[in-house]
Amino acid sequence: MAAPSVSVLITGANRGLGLEMVKQIVEAPRPMKKLFACCRDPDGPRAEALQTLAKKHPDIISVVRLDDLCSIKQCAQHVGSLVGTGGLNLLINNAGILFRKTLQETSPEEMQKTFNTNVIGPMSILQEFLPHLRSAAKACGTPGMSTSKAAVVNISSTLASMQRIQQTYEIIPAVSYRISKAALNMLTMCAVEELRKDEILFSLLHPGWVRTEMGGEDGEIDVQESVLGMCDVMASLTEKQNGAFLDYKGNPIPW
Amino acid sequence: MAAPSVSVLITGANRGLGLEMVKQIVEAPRPMKKLFACCRDPDGPRAEALQTLAKKHPDIISVVRLDDLCSIKQCAQHVGSLVGTGGLNLLINNAGILFRKTLQETSPEEMQKTFNTNVIGPMSILQEFLPHLRSAAKACGTPGMSTSKAAVVNISSTLASMQRIQQTYEIIPAVSYRISKAALNMLTMCAVEELRKDEILFSLLHPGWVRTEMGGEDGEIDVQESVLGMCDVMASLTEKQNGAFLDYKGNPIPW
Ligand SMILES: NC(=O)c1ccc[n+]([C@@H]2O[C@H](COP(=O)([O-])OP(=O)(O)OC[C@H]3O[C@@H](n4cnc5c(N)ncnc54)[C@H](OP(=O)(O)O)[C@@H]3O)[C@@H](O)[C@H]2O)c1
Ligand SMILES: NC(=O)c1ccc[n+]([C@@H]2O[C@H](COP(=O)([O-])OP(=O)(O)OC[C@H]3O[C@@H](n4cnc5c(N)ncnc54)[C@H](OP(=O)(O)O)[C@@H]3O)[C@@H](O)[C@H]2O)c1
Repeated sequence: MAAPSVSVLITGANRGLGLEMVKQIVEAPRPMKKLFACCRDPDGPRAEALQTLAKKHPDIISVVRLDDLCSIKQCAQHVGSLVGTGGLNLLINNAGILFRKTLQETSPEEMQKTFNTNVIGPMSILQEFLPHLRSAAKACGTPGMSTSKAAVVNISSTLASMQRIQQTYEIIPAVSYRISKAALNMLTMCAVEELRKDEILFSLLHPGWVRTEMGGEDGEIDVQESVLGMCDVMASLTEKQNGAFLDYKGNPIPW
Repeated sequence: MAAPSVSVLITGANRGLGLEMVKQIVEAPRPMKKLFACCRDPDGPRAEALQTLAKKHPDIISVVRLDDLCSIKQCAQHVGSLVGTGGLNLLINNAGILFRKTLQETSPEEMQKTFNTNVIGPMSILQEFLPHLRSAAKACGTPGMSTSKAAVVNISSTLASMQRIQQTYEIIPAVSYRISKAALNMLTMCAVEELRKDEILFSLLHPGWVRTEMGGEDGEIDVQESVLGMCDVMASLTEKQNGAFLDYKGNPIPW
């Protein structure tokens, strides 16, 4: 029996890791039904590379606007109308923002902005897409958990690890970012507890230190290597890794 | 040589655990210079018990308004003018808010409100009082760390523990609260890294499940027991416990 075709949604898909995920997923041999590539401004100059890629795969890639809560609701409706009872199999919360500042330099406004983008965004997206994830879990028919059944992958960071902070703080403080990613980790663990019975898998991935606008030129790896690794890890996830915090090589990261 | 007298500041001091801390600290044999008991509305009906207590110890307890960023700055100035070069020895971030809701019920507004109170509040307070904590560390003259030298105790919760979530989630989901306290834990660890050289101690305390307005009638212990325990733990802290996450009995809590 051929593997069933899946539907995937990726946020922050216009550049960096998100764009590379769209590329690798659409070009992978795994059969793909729909790939929703979301970004804040699909018609602006920052989405040109994504639009070019989408034109090469017009039946699979949909470029969709995802920004404020209103657009999240609209996007969820749009996705629902396209995937139907098959649902959405995999939601990747990748969009994220980082301020490099120390604790003493961080302003309340930067804290709020980072928290809104990195935590409240993924929460609202999960809430609105939950019916489609549940549909996918039901449509699958087999027990257990996997990213081709129904799953949410939240892109976190090793900077969110309290246990590793002594090694990472001197490289970059990024206090509001660390706080937001630790918060995202907790959000994800709450989802694990609340939605285990729905057989929706949740996982936290650290992409490595990657040369993107966020990671900067000194990053240790390029987007190809990071996304190759993350795609392998995602494909290997089962209910045993529900709630796992893993790097792009599949190594667990301590909280 | 007699122990030097210390200055302490407590937020959310008008009721619950904060009020009991003021009581026990002012009545303890340890010599007390100044105890700043902060609350949102010192002149309102919710601060009556605190005002009555303050009248019994007029030389020690100052009831001070602490609410928005502007009042935090004013409070820090006021405290500075009273403690002088002796500085502030111990800052206890105790004020906190909790919504009991699940992930599916939690609104963006509840997330923001909880994050503002439980995370941005303590951050702004730390930023504004840092000069006074540094003064206290310098004035002390002996090496090492302690809560009678210069310290910040952030009141966290076992609900912030990712490793314990499977045991605690079914008791109470309180998703925005868990997220905020995990965020507070990370904020504290950032402070540990950034301010170690200043010899300011940071610690996270879980008061137990306590019968207060927040804890409810089903709480396992009363405020007396919780605060007795937390005061013992605070008195025992040294540089070895810098960054420790402990319950009111001194037991470590995993992240
Ligand atoms: N690069 C690394 O070394 C590294 C390490 C650990 C974790 N990560 C995580 O990996 C993910 C992707 O990072 P990246 O390196 O690819 O970063 P990036 O190149 O800076 O791209 C960030 C993406 O997020 C979007 N975004 C930013 N702010 C947003 C907002 N307020 N609302 C909606 N979308 C927003 C951006 O869209 P616009 O073009 O519209 O701004 C862009 O698509 C992030 O979650 C990041 O935290 C990266
Ligand atoms: N009780 C428990 O079982 C338990 C367990 C774990 C952790 N904790 C933590 O212990 C601390 C004290 O809790 P509690 O049980 O004493 O709670 P409580 O009885 O509900 O008292 C909360 C205190 O925080 C203040 N507060 C609430 N929202 C505020 C805001 N937006 N700005 C400024 N102050 C605000 C309240 O002031 P107003 O009177 O003005 O509202 C009050 O002084 C909290 O940090 C809590 O998270 C409690």
